[in-house]
Amino acid sequence: MIGLAVVRRLAEMGHEVVVLDLRPEPADSAATGSAVADVTDREAVRKVLLEHEIETVVHTAALVATAQRDPVRAFEINVGGTLAVLEGARAADVERVVYCSSRAVYGDVLGADPRGSAPRISERQPVNPKGVYDVTKVAAEGLGRNYRRDHGVEFVALRYGSIYGPGKDVASHGGFGILSRMVEDPARGRPVRVERGGDQVDDMIYVEDVALGTALAVTATSVPETEYHVSSGVGHTLHDLAAAVEAAIPGAEIEIGPGLDHVGFGIDYYAVLENDRARRDLGFEPEFDLRTGVADYLARLAH
Amino acid sequence: MIGLAVVRRLAEMGHEVVVLDLRPEPADSAATGSAVADVTDREAVRKVLLEHEIETVVHTAALVATAQRDPVRAFEINVGGTLAVLEGARAADVERVVYCSSRAVYGDVLGADPRGSAPRISERQPVNPKGVYDVTKVAAEGLGRNYRRDHGVEFVALRYGSIYGPGKDVASHGGFGILSRMVEDPARGRPVRVERGGDQVDDMIYVEDVALGTALAVTATSVPETEYHVSSGVGHTLHDLAAAVEAAIPGAEIEIGPGLDHVGFGIDYYAVLENDRARRDLGFEPEFDLRTGVADYLARLAH
Repeated sequence: MIGLAVVRRLAEMGHEVVVLDLRPEPADSAATGSAVADVTDREAVRKVLLEHEIETVVHTAALVATAQRDPVRAFEINVGGTLAVLEGARAADVERVVYCSSRAVYGDVLGADPRGSAPRISERQPVNPKGVYDVTKVAAEGLGRNYRRDHGVEFVALRYGSIYGPGKDVASHGGFGILSRMVEDPARGRPVRVERGGDQVDDMIYVEDVALGTALAVTATSVPETEYHVSSGVGHTLHDLAAAVEAAIPGAEIEIGPGLDHVGFGIDYYAVLENDRARRDLGFEPEFDLRTGVADYLARLAH
Repeated sequence: MIGLAVVRRLAEMGHEVVVLDLRPEPADSAATGSAVADVTDREAVRKVLLEHEIETVVHTAALVATAQRDPVRAFEINVGGTLAVLEGARAADVERVVYCSSRAVYGDVLGADPRGSAPRISERQPVNPKGVYDVTKVAAEGLGRNYRRDHGVEFVALRYGSIYGPGKDVASHGGFGILSRMVEDPARGRPVRVERGGDQVDDMIYVEDVALGTALAVTATSVPETEYHVSSGVGHTLHDLAAAVEAAIPGAEIEIGPGLDHVGFGIDYYAVLENDRARRDLGFEPEFDLRTGVADYLARLAH
């Protein structure tokens, strides 16, 4: 999901983009080149980086939805894959690796507030991984920091808010697809009923703002910090998202139950992510709020 | 080093101990059985656990001295090895996994005090991994916590002070062998000269207390917490250790330069590790101070 939006954004900005994926994907049509390989195959990744003379890597590959029940595979892909990228970057003199990390690194530091008002956290918040996915993200970031210090690879970790936009479906993202369902079902004239989570405050960001923030991390002259929040910096609930959908689709039927954790993964890292560093160092400023984000989402669905 | 002492201790306590190692080691003579396998070989580890009907695993295998310059291998051994143990434990209905972790999980939270007075930290201190070894230890602990929660493996992580005692040599432990050199060189009539680090406060624990704390984590009826400090709980410098050596070996020639970080790895996690939980839940109480520890060390060297 992030990859597709970032490839398009970078191509629009005039960059040559090579897509590396397990199989040919729609993103490839916007790209200058493509390669098929397993991200955990260090030799293959190194070859692609060398052959295409890659200057910057945006590393998005990760196992998300099934990480908790398959820790071995989660580590192979999320940590082994990042190691392959970092080793390859070192061997191929890649200048920068932009790693698509996650607020999951904060694990159960957050969400402790039973009333649902998510804490506001800065980009200096200590990590505290809980689930398997969280642990893999902390490990990958930690490795990247070491390659930055020891091996001259300018590693940057981006931690995103809850992303909504085309491509984030329930099949690949599990409960994380709920935000998309709240837009796509009404767009198709279907009612949406969300069991629970209406009281949960969360930081929701439109995928095109994710693409913007990620592209800025690629093109910024320098990235003095290692961790950045690409986020809205604003707290919203599903009711706010529903209002945005109803404004665009009069008569949309959306029903939201009370309670917390609308994603339903038992995750505890809902938070409003302050993005001071990203604004200062990357020049990041979200271009969409919930209303304009939903409107753009619906326009893209209609195509 | 830890493994050898723990095998002997558990055997003395009447337990049947099976040693799993890359090759036959001296520890095997105290053990009831032994097996040769690579800890990263999930199938081999599982088979050993099943065949010997193992109830509790003490997992000590790790890459330490070369982890920083070989992150790939460090992850294969330190995280992949722990995954193999956890997966094997799950498949073989092992009740408990005692993981020999490290204060390295605290990374650069600590040691910030330029005067060398190490901070006192509790067993609730947040992790903040810095070096590659630190990152592997945080990842392994994080995985263990998930197997404890999801798969019924009672995982416990022990974080030790700076261990001194027979077997911790410079060849296998790099700068971490310095404490041993300060005892063993004078025992052989050689002078010791330590370039720097005399101002560094650190938590030093004798290997037999490490064996005690680890054995208690094996035999405790229940382990309500996941993280424990097996430590002295007292701050000392190399000068204190030198005084203990000089008390046992009159005329010992020990010269210690000023400054911090006697280990010389650029590590930042010197600290005095409070061990309230270990005392409360495991009944742990160190039996040695620096003087009696050095005396025991010398007696063992003489055999």
